Amino acid sequence: MTLIAIDKERLYASLNELGEIGAYDDAEAGVRGVNRLALTAADGAGRRHVVARMRAANLEVTIDRIGNVYGRRAGRDNRLRSVMMGSHIDSVPTAGRFDGCLGVLGALEVVATLDRAKIETERPVVVAFFTDEEGSRFGTDMLGSAVATGRLALEDAYALRDRSGATVHDELENVGFLGEADVRLTPPHAYLECHIEQGPILRASGMDIGVVTGVQSISWHELTIVGKSAHAGTTPMPMRADAGVAAARINLHLREMIASGRYGRDMRATMGAISPSPGLVNIVPGRVTATVDLRNPDDAFMRAAEADVIAFYDEAARAEHVRIAWRQTARTPCVPFDEGLQAHIARCAGARGLAHTRIVSGAGHDAQEMAHITRAAMVFVPGENDGISHNPRELSTPEQCAGGVSVLFDVLRLLAAEKD
Amino acid sequence: MTLIAIDKERLYASLNELGEIGAYDDAEAGVRGVNRLALTAADGAGRRHVVARMRAANLEVTIDRIGNVYGRRAGRDNRLRSVMMGSHIDSVPTAGRFDGCLGVLGALEVVATLDRAKIETERPVVVAFFTDEEGSRFGTDMLGSAVATGRLALEDAYALRDRSGATVHDELENVGFLGEADVRLTPPHAYLECHIEQGPILRASGMDIGVVTGVQSISWHELTIVGKSAHAGTTPMPMRADAGVAAARINLHLREMIASGRYGRDMRATMGAISPSPGLVNIVPGRVTATVDLRNPDDAFMRAAEADVIAFYDEAARAEHVRIAWRQTARTPCVPFDEGLQAHIARCAGARGLAHTRIVSGAGHDAQEMAHITRAAMVFVPGENDGISHNPRELSTPEQCAGGVSVLFDVLRLLAAEKD
Repeated sequence: MTLIAIDKERLYASLNELGEIGAYDDAEAGVRGVNRLALTAADGAGRRHVVARMRAANLEVTIDRIGNVYGRRAGRDNRLRSVMMGSHIDSVPTAGRFDGCLGVLGALEVVATLDRAKIETERPVVVAFFTDEEGSRFGTDMLGSAVATGRLALEDAYALRDRSGATVHDELENVGFLGEADVRLTPPHAYLECHIEQGPILRASGMDIGVVTGVQSISWHELTIVGKSAHAGTTPMPMRADAGVAAARINLHLREMIASGRYGRDMRATMGAISPSPGLVNIVPGRVTATVDLRNPDDAFMRAAEADVIAFYDEAARAEHVRIAWRQTARTPCVPFDEGLQAHIARCAGARGLAHTRIVSGAGHDAQEMAHITRAAMVFVPGENDGISHNPRELSTPEQCAGGVSVLFDVLRLLAAEKD
Repeated sequence: MTLIAIDKERLYASLNELGEIGAYDDAEAGVRGVNRLALTAADGAGRRHVVARMRAANLEVTIDRIGNVYGRRAGRDNRLRSVMMGSHIDSVPTAGRFDGCLGVLGALEVVATLDRAKIETERPVVVAFFTDEEGSRFGTDMLGSAVATGRLALEDAYALRDRSGATVHDELENVGFLGEADVRLTPPHAYLECHIEQGPILRASGMDIGVVTGVQSISWHELTIVGKSAHAGTTPMPMRADAGVAAARINLHLREMIASGRYGRDMRATMGAISPSPGLVNIVPGRVTATVDLRNPDDAFMRAAEADVIAFYDEAARAEHVRIAWRQTARTPCVPFDEGLQAHIARCAGARGLAHTRIVSGAGHDAQEMAHITRAAMVFVPGENDGISHNPRELSTPEQCAGGVSVLFDVLRLLAAEKD
């Protein structure tokens, strides 16, 4: 297969162009940020911009009943199932220009490169963007792709409300994206998504491309630790029930679990929130709320790690004479990506001379929903600034972006040529 | 010395009477609380009430320029220095009826008992209450006694402001207690203060009386720990700089210092405040502010413990790749009480058949200021509800209060009879 260059400048210009829709000056970050919360006026403007670009590229545009948008380029044999590339263009309220957009605009760049090279594919090719991947406004992430792949019922999705009480249904109507196409997606031949890593690994290890092996499992606990508030000066140590010390024990136990390696080398654990009450210098904290975030790319390890930490809650409660209640606030299993597609991505990256490595996705993506109905895979590109994301300082260079989209192009060509 | 009974009911009724001034219904505690913040209208009403009681007891009332009030009962030889009993009647915003008031109303009960028994003392006897012991309003505790004993300059005290900008001077004037008497106190022959323990020790050990050996040393640190906020899902454990884990390490190091016993059996240490930023379940805390409260009844042990914890800040910073800055927000050395007076208190308690033990004061008191200019000592009485204080649930029984005031009476008689 002859290597064909994508247009690096055109791709990056398109990222900057879309990034001006919903842009704002972020004083804290010192750079321009993006706020295109799902189904707001800014998201509507972004959507119209991308649809216009699809139409300019002669793609046949379909909008389904949850507002997912599909742009189709015909193949030689249109009875064959399409190869789909996609991601999302909605954002968190304080975003950069890359999260999601790279996958959508990269897919349009792939189509433009096919057109310029006058390549006709065997199968149809579809460029997709899904509604409300972020979940920042209506509380449910991967909303559009979850409805399209059957995990979430359309009526339940319609009924979700934002803080002001507005529903997904009404806001779809307001932005003009309440489409009529059947929401359940006919499984495509394969699904490919190019995305920024949103973490530091690729950049730190000098890699150009991450071959994503899957999305790791997530488990969130919210803890309520109840001890006894007491005067820090007058209460002897043996008579205390210090909820803050119990939280500290749990936090360090998470570190011990990591250090032991008994739940794999890729386990991650974080106590992100700790809130003691009354929270005064001279009062033993009588009550603490805290959170535990566990991640693991292996479901069996995750289950064992959860059992470990839950058993430790009891141990900490006994040691500190406190009560510890916990509730599960999120739980998703691992979603492995297709091995064959991973091999394609690695091979294509190698053929381009791009340094590549296997990597687990730490965050959720539309590809994990698509994996329920077809072969799915993701191409990660590195990010500067330790891969910071959900922040205006999010930044991947033109070279980094072009590397990922070049691999997307090559793998798309391979898959779109497959006759069965 | 013949034992004379004080009037338990009269004493307790006087506590309840003063407790109605500034009283409020505390929904959380489920009982009636007291709010007599220093130099507010409620404090003014409380002051007028106590002054009226002093005058009714034929005491000669003097008010000094910082609002301290002294009520004097003449002795046989009024050239001799007086024996002073006292405490304070101002309160924290959510107080009970005992903190401070027991020492003032108990002293008035001692005078009443002397009168009823027609006892003339060799030396004059003075009942004192000092301005703003709590420090809750103007930020400096033991304000009145610190000025009277020379630790704090009058002009500096006058200039202190509350949150609304009101000064101590103007508020003294407003409540009518900007007196004219010289603020520097002529050292009395001795100073005695009866107070609730404000802790659980006496009640838990079945003791009626605490012979207070002194006020322990206090050291407060405010920590600012700066790491790096990062995505909990995408950031590998070795690349983290988790300020929350550093705080947890410090909290458990405090416990290790206690457990080792290397700073004495009576060291206390507390991390009362911990505030992570951004404080979200899926973000590694990039910044934490936290506090450390160290207490020790031994100055040498305190200095060594401070050096230990400061060295550990560096160790935790290195271990977690964070920066830790700290500043001293409070520091007072130990104040030992007079050994001879302690022996008197123990002997008098024994003579009354009251179980007694030596105890260190965990909190600060006016007696520690008086100790700079004369022999000073304190009599502690137990509290119910684990000795909870600064809370409407603060409670000592009529028997507990009467025990302490009986000992106060006996020791006062001994000291007031001393000719030199």
